[in-house]
Amino acid sequence: MIFREATRQDLPAVLALLADEDSVVDPARVVIGEAHERAFAAIEADPRNEVLVLTDGAGGAGGAGEVVLGCLQLTYIPGLGQNGQERALVEAVRIRADRRGAGLGADLMRLAAERARERGCGLIQLTSNKRRTAAHRFYERLGFARSHEGFKLHLEP
Amino acid sequence: MIFREATRQDLPAVLALLADEDSVVDPARVVIGEAHERAFAAIEADPRNEVLVLTDGAGGAGGAGEVVLGCLQLTYIPGLGQNGQERALVEAVRIRADRRGAGLGADLMRLAAERARERGCGLIQLTSNKRRTAAHRFYERLGFARSHEGFKLHLEP
Repeated sequence: MIFREATRQDLPAVLALLADEDSVVDPARVVIGEAHERAFAAIEADPRNEVLVLTDGAGGAGGAGEVVLGCLQLTYIPGLGQNGQERALVEAVRIRADRRGAGLGADLMRLAAERARERGCGLIQLTSNKRRTAAHRFYERLGFARSHEGFKLHLEP
Repeated sequence: MIFREATRQDLPAVLALLADEDSVVDPARVVIGEAHERAFAAIEADPRNEVLVLTDGAGGAGGAGEVVLGCLQLTYIPGLGQNGQERALVEAVRIRADRRGAGLGADLMRLAAERARERGCGLIQLTSNKRRTAAHRFYERLGFARSHEGFKLHLEP
């Protein structure tokens, strides 16, 4: 398996994972909009944001036969607390529907935490919808403390 | 009142607010460490991070008599979801201990949400420690949905 930064070539596979709720979406059928292109370019250009993929490594990194099994986004946030250490925020965690239940999610999260630790982050954090109780147990098994309430407010344009 | 980006000159007042749990800390007594300087410089240099202050406006923005009443940090996160709109993350929300209970916190949060909306963010989000039940009611009154569980994992160097 390979854990690496996503390139523009991975964008269809990443968008397929994000669209996949309970069944695999074929990356070849994903429509890539202008907003997706803009957001991906913004993430690639920002030293504090990255989309990371876990792949089966077939044919090597970026090879034609390589299948993307999971993804997540990391944001490294500078702050005045925690002795000036950055914190890492995790968003958009996904594992391909037909590869769940085999520990890939744990691999992905451990690799992400290790990457954040190596960068010098003092903390890694995420929120998970209250309905996703299986995900909560998953994060607790990985050592995360469910210490906070997560609040969201949608903003109208 | 004035709502504006913090400058280096505000750093003692902001650190005093962050250190203030139940009583006002005198900014003149705050020790500014190298890590604080580095973190503040990193935030100032990053177009997706800002520390914002709410002040009494005495003597004008940045004037000698101006008192910082509250602060927060906003991080604007690019992402592939939500039609490519950024989301705003709020951290380090504080109101001076001797000025609480007068609606300043609501003013500060509304100004932050309005700033994020004007920038084009589709969502503003934050987490609050589960023990802070009064804060939870406060965010719900402001229209935030308590929809998520917040997980944190401390990383050892």
